Amino acid sequence: MATPAFLACDWGTTNLRAWLMADDGRVLKSRDFPFGVSQLAPGEAAKRFREEVRPGLVAEHLPAVLCGMIGSTLGWAVADYLPCPASLADLRGDLMEVEGGQARVTIVPGLRCEGLTGAPDVMRGEETQVFGWTRLAPERRRGRWVVCHPGTHAKWVLVEEGRIVRFVTAMTGELFAVLRKHSVLKSDAASDDEPAFDEGVAAAGDGGALASRLFSARSRVVAGDARADTTPSYLSGLLIGAEAAAAPDLLGIAPDAPVALIGEPALCRWYSRALKGRGRLVSIHNGDEAARAGLFALQQEMAA
Amino acid sequence: MATPAFLACDWGTTNLRAWLMADDGRVLKSRDFPFGVSQLAPGEAAKRFREEVRPGLVAEHLPAVLCGMIGSTLGWAVADYLPCPASLADLRGDLMEVEGGQARVTIVPGLRCEGLTGAPDVMRGEETQVFGWTRLAPERRRGRWVVCHPGTHAKWVLVEEGRIVRFVTAMTGELFAVLRKHSVLKSDAASDDEPAFDEGVAAAGDGGALASRLFSARSRVVAGDARADTTPSYLSGLLIGAEAAAAPDLLGIAPDAPVALIGEPALCRWYSRALKGRGRLVSIHNGDEAARAGLFALQQEMAA
Repeated sequence: MATPAFLACDWGTTNLRAWLMADDGRVLKSRDFPFGVSQLAPGEAAKRFREEVRPGLVAEHLPAVLCGMIGSTLGWAVADYLPCPASLADLRGDLMEVEGGQARVTIVPGLRCEGLTGAPDVMRGEETQVFGWTRLAPERRRGRWVVCHPGTHAKWVLVEEGRIVRFVTAMTGELFAVLRKHSVLKSDAASDDEPAFDEGVAAAGDGGALASRLFSARSRVVAGDARADTTPSYLSGLLIGAEAAAAPDLLGIAPDAPVALIGEPALCRWYSRALKGRGRLVSIHNGDEAARAGLFALQQEMAA
Repeated sequence: MATPAFLACDWGTTNLRAWLMADDGRVLKSRDFPFGVSQLAPGEAAKRFREEVRPGLVAEHLPAVLCGMIGSTLGWAVADYLPCPASLADLRGDLMEVEGGQARVTIVPGLRCEGLTGAPDVMRGEETQVFGWTRLAPERRRGRWVVCHPGTHAKWVLVEEGRIVRFVTAMTGELFAVLRKHSVLKSDAASDDEPAFDEGVAAAGDGGALASRLFSARSRVVAGDARADTTPSYLSGLLIGAEAAAAPDLLGIAPDAPVALIGEPALCRWYSRALKGRGRLVSIHNGDEAARAGLFALQQEMAA
């Protein structure tokens, strides 16, 4: 059996995914913990890591590399944002060490770039997945690639010659969650009705006038044109469709540029459905695998 | 003193505004009740009206005219939507009588028109304010006018020769409420910071890519460019600015067409600020006065 070499963690807002990794990049053990940074008290991260994460993966004496919101003001310690364009080597040059027990603990910084409104745009965690994804196939470190990372705050990322050139965030997942739970569109129904999702994608049009398009999720039911239990699916299609229409333009990419979706597989499939409906070529890639590949590459560079 | 002639009510989602009116249109008495249709049990509207509203205004024996959500499935009885274009006379021809005690009770229907997504757009209550507003000055019943009614579900209305030709809804107020209360942008701070509001209006750009622009409300704070307590003001400016940019195009009106704002005075002032910032000519009109004028006109036509 391969020797355990290090502990890789993607420590986000709502949970922590930890993998015990061999020195050849294989996963020896994996475990999820229910304490994302939004559930941590100030100063609690180090204690949890020492008392639960390390013992949980029998990794008390191994170095650890952590990416995600753990490097934010809500996390363990603040790892500043690196400006774009940025490469994996830039990330390597800006890692932050924290006091983490018997072995080295390193936190990966986030990235920032100029946003479309004058305010900067920021990411934390997705950069590690994107760079990891470029490590999974050599051709991804050549030429131009468009990556979309669906989620609460979805990221669209332009990768050129292995560097993240720029990116743009869309609060699509968060809009879906708050509208579905707290607005006039609220509903406990599932969001897996494909025809209603497609109807929502079509209603997204060019992605403009979103506040008006959203009202159609209400009016189609009020006017008797649709069943109320299709509202979450329609809303999901409308919001993802609006993002699929607007985000590529914001990145300045061609209408026929393929999109690599990296993230949670079920959500990636809905994005794929919306993007394919708009004529885009799409591929789907596992987010956990990408995160591990990114953390492994950083660990290797540190060990080199 | 003028003789009480009828009871005028704007019965909305969250409250009921009632006015005892003289036969010359003057207000003899006014009262607000805290039971909008969202707080009513099925069948409760008639009882509340008989036992609280009529006695509260000493109007037990007077005819009553009611507009607003009271004509919806949540209200007293469903008054179907009239299709656009529609005039006040069309509304008069489609009033619905309900059993309301010792004197006639009439409910004003809502309006519907073709929406921008294929689903219809709908309104209930605003039509009475808009027609009332046309009664307050004769020139408003000639030519072309653009009316904006800010609110939870803001309405932009095109009026030609005294008829409502078409309209479009924007869920701006509701987006503001749910994001401010339940999202990563949540804040208890006030939303009356003018520079932050103006910054939000500027960040709205052409109103497109709203889910991305919204993230700037977060990133400007995370990146250290702004104080967190300015977020509600910035968010308000961003959402109203996006509506101000997108809605006129949806109605197909000229960039220099003046906009008449009808509604709650404080909210109208924020809309005015955003619209003037975009170079629009704006006037502000009181929504209650407009509602009373519309209900009075309908009462007069019924009595004629």
